[in-house]
Amino acid sequence: MTTERRATANAARRKETSRRAILTSAFELVQEVGYVKLTIEGIAARAGVGKQTIYRWWPSKGAVLFDAFLMLSEDGAGEPAALPDTGDLEADLKTVLRATVAELTDPRYDEPMRALATEIAHDPELAAAYLERLDAPLKELKRQRLRSAQRAGQLADDLDLDVAMDLIWGPLLNRWLQRTGPLTAEYADRVVTTSLNGLRPRSPEGGSARAGA
Amino acid sequence: MTTERRATANAARRKETSRRAILTSAFELVQEVGYVKLTIEGIAARAGVGKQTIYRWWPSKGAVLFDAFLMLSEDGAGEPAALPDTGDLEADLKTVLRATVAELTDPRYDEPMRALATEIAHDPELAAAYLERLDAPLKELKRQRLRSAQRAGQLADDLDLDVAMDLIWGPLLNRWLQRTGPLTAEYADRVVTTSLNGLRPRSPEGGSARAGA
Repeated sequence: MTTERRATANAARRKETSRRAILTSAFELVQEVGYVKLTIEGIAARAGVGKQTIYRWWPSKGAVLFDAFLMLSEDGAGEPAALPDTGDLEADLKTVLRATVAELTDPRYDEPMRALATEIAHDPELAAAYLERLDAPLKELKRQRLRSAQRAGQLADDLDLDVAMDLIWGPLLNRWLQRTGPLTAEYADRVVTTSLNGLRPRSPEGGSARAGA
Repeated sequence: MTTERRATANAARRKETSRRAILTSAFELVQEVGYVKLTIEGIAARAGVGKQTIYRWWPSKGAVLFDAFLMLSEDGAGEPAALPDTGDLEADLKTVLRATVAELTDPRYDEPMRALATEIAHDPELAAAYLERLDAPLKELKRQRLRSAQRAGQLADDLDLDVAMDLIWGPLLNRWLQRTGPLTAEYADRVVTTSLNGLRPRSPEGGSARAGA
């Protein structure tokens, strides 16, 4: 390896080390001080870099946090590669929603995820990037699981799967972010059962009857 | 009226005038500059008061915004005294949810409501005050409408009304705040139909059949 090529490789490695230090620091710091008090200066100090380094790569603290989530997700610390599929849709959805409740109420994740949700709420561009890079892959996993249930006759044939996903996950996310009620495993179970069965009365055989194709 | 009593009455009137000017200014300003750039200084300048006056009455810009919403709601500019009850639950819920969509996508309300949602997400005390003073009265109206439907046999007898409300309103609020998809009247309609019918297939007579009490 020539001296020049070695120098380039070293520079790339240093850059990647700094990038990961910054993202890790942002994620840790927001847990400690909260989103409102999170600053680029604070992230820089914790990561041991100059704040100009951060400003060169990211336009805002929200953008840093977003990439921190992306790094976690790419490192595989986040979501699994597929949703459980035991054949029992109700049980599988309860498993998944209970895990979501555990994650949302985990002090390590609660504050960083509120911070990300806030940035999304106020920044349409970041929201679009979030949709494409974090939300879409996750939604695809959910869609696959629902399609499998639809093939098994456990979901209505004419169901709008986007609306279905919003009905299953929306209440929980809204209750968490807006603090409108306790977020428990029991609540997760009820959301699953109620969304599957619907709010109207069901005739005794209605729950398992197949709708005409 | 004695001079002293007149002076006290004038002071109270001036205080109320200042208070309303501050709240109106906060609500207007957040529409123009957005939540992130909203400052106490900016509100004070627009209201024509010193910023110390604001700090004397409110601890944060979030608290000012919250009271601005409360003033609007008390002035009756906000929600009606009851949800429509024509006897047709599905039609009534569509009317209500379409109105919510119109409000959430109205440029006059979108940014102030995002600001309030953000404060709630990051401030558990403000969230508790919001729950009690703004959310609870509204929820009571929703609960009354659902109870009326339950008495008419249009909702399952054993339905958890809190979960039901979350299923009807949660998807819409989450989609709006997190920008996860378009917020349209058609979407509102689908959420209503899908939450009422449930995600599972229904037998042809299932939709209107009464469950055993």
